[in-house]
Order: sequence, then C-alpha cells, then structure tokens
Amino acid sequence: MQGGSQACETKRQGLILVASLVDKVPNVAGLTRTCEVFRAAALAVSDMRITKDPLFSSISVTAEQWMPLLEVPEANLSQWMVQKRAEGYRLIGVEQTAGSTLLPEFAFPSKSVLLLGRGREGIPLQLLQLLDHTVEIPQLGVIRSLNVHVSGAIALYEYSRQQHAQQQAKFS
Amino acid sequence: MQGGSQACETKRQGLILVASLVDKVPNVAGLTRTCEVFRAAALAVSDMRITKDPLFSSISVTAEQWMPLLEVPEANLSQWMVQKRAEGYRLIGVEQTAGSTLLPEFAFPSKSVLLLGRGREGIPLQLLQLLDHTVEIPQLGVIRSLNVHVSGAIALYEYSRQQHAQQQAKFS
Repeated sequence: MQGGSQACETKRQGLILVASLVDKVPNVAGLTRTCEVFRAAALAVSDMRITKDPLFSSISVTAEQWMPLLEVPEANLSQWMVQKRAEGYRLIGVEQTAGSTLLPEFAFPSKSVLLLGRGREGIPLQLLQLLDHTVEIPQLGVIRSLNVHVSGAIALYEYSRQQHAQQQAKFS
Repeated sequence: MQGGSQACETKRQGLILVASLVDKVPNVAGLTRTCEVFRAAALAVSDMRITKDPLFSSISVTAEQWMPLLEVPEANLSQWMVQKRAEGYRLIGVEQTAGSTLLPEFAFPSKSVLLLGRGREGIPLQLLQLLDHTVEIPQLGVIRSLNVHVSGAIALYEYSRQQHAQQQAKFS
C-alpha cells in the first residue's frame, strides 16, 4: 500500500479498481488520477515500479501520493480476487460477453471489485469465469471501442452516481 | 466537415462536443475516438491540421475518418455558439461555477452543444456568459481534477444514458 489518506477528510468509496491487466503507462497513470478524483477505495496495479516512470508522473500529477495503490501481479490475480470475494466484495468485469449487463442498468453493490481488461484481448477466460457479473458500456460507433482509461472512468462515474443517488434517497 | 457517415447505419446522437479550447493533442485525439464510440453529432476543434499530427493518429485510431469534425477556431466560438442556439441547440459548459448543476441531476436536451474548458483555466468568462447551463462532474478527491478527455467522455456517457432511458420509456 502506497500513499496515505491521513490528510483526507472525505470517506473513500467502496470500489476497488483493478488495472493489473492494463499495460500502457499512460492508461495506468490516468486511472490513478481518475481514481483519486472519485476517491476509489484502492487501485490495483501489476507492478508498483510503474509509478517511478517519468511518463507516469506527468500524467498522474501526484495522484499516486493520495491514492491507495495495491500491487497485484497478473499471476496472483485469481487468488486475490477469490480473497476479496471472501471479504464481501462482488467481482465485476468491464467486458462485452453474452451475459453482460448494460452499465446504466447494472446496480452496483457498495463493495465492488471492478476488473478492467487488457487492450484488445479483454479479460482472459480464467478470470472471466471467476466474476460475479460483467458489465458493458453501450457503444454506438462503427469501428472503435473505448480506451481502457475512459472505460474505467465511466464505470467509476456510474458507480459514484448510484451511490450518490442512494445517499440522497436515504436522507430525503 | 471531414470524414463521412455514408457507411454508418446507426443514427447519430444530437450532441455536438466542442473541443476548440482543448490544446493538447492527446486530449483532442482521445475525444475524437470517444465521440465516435458514442456517435456524437460532431466534434468541433480549433484547427483541423491537428488530425495530421502522428501523435493524433496513434490515439484516435482512425476515428477521425468516421467522425464529423468541424473547424471552429476560438476567435469564432462566440459567433458559432450563438448560431447554434438559433438552430435550436442549448449551450452547455462543463465547468464548476456557483450556478452549475451536478451532471447526474442535469436533464440534457436532445440538441445540446457541450463546451469543454481549457486545462486549468476552464471556460473564459465571455463564453461562460453565453451558456444556457453549466454542469459539473461530482469530484470527491482532495487535490486533483479530472483530465479534460475524461470529463468529456463522462458527459457524453451521461447524455447517452439519458437518451437511452428516454427511448426505453417511449417504447415500454
């Protein structure tokens, strides 16, 4: 665990984002910044040394100092995910599958582990099989799919939107 | 107008995204890709030559061939926006102001022009004064704000989510 939340007054949300399959430095750095903005519980990356890359720093703009980062190499991902489920998290993948739910129609559990796929290949089969749910972002375009940082950001926004709406319903 | 929609079968949405104040090539290229995925009506950029930049191509992954791009230099932006309002569009800025609405609580009109701000400075005052509405993405973090590509992508997602929900309500 790197960084700290000692100085932070706002409670963290219950979502852990998993970027262990994301290989490009700008995407991992961008996700770190976006996770900090949405105060995700933590961000898992495959190798903590990525934060020392100058390209990472230029994009994360110090977010890694404020954001709890976990090192979860791909080889340990299955085991780590099973452990998280035992801790009460639901395992959710952002992936188009035959059984995936459209993101706006998916009701996020408060304790969610959100797994992002690898560039073109997406989430490998052995990890897909572990998931409780897959969600897909409705895409209307002809040729392109969303960049993985953008997909993660939209999922984080949707999660936050739902949590906010639930809080409001509770206090109204 | 560059690119064409001759080969496209899905109808475009009614939102025009304005990136004329966005200066960094990766952000404009990323927005082009994201606009294509969400089938925005058009994307306005300050200078069409940006699409010839090799860095642009590496990020847009040919989206500029499918996405209608408009050249609207910053100097022409006020005039262009007033014209769009006369054509029935509402002018909306993504910006934190005293009067801005939280994005999830804002009901997008179908014909929306969505203006993104410049890096740190945001939307200049003379353009802010022209807008019908400003919306802000709820941000919980301590130190950072969202990258402009991510902000635009989240606003596009929210617009699409609302349009989709309206379509569903109409046919159910």
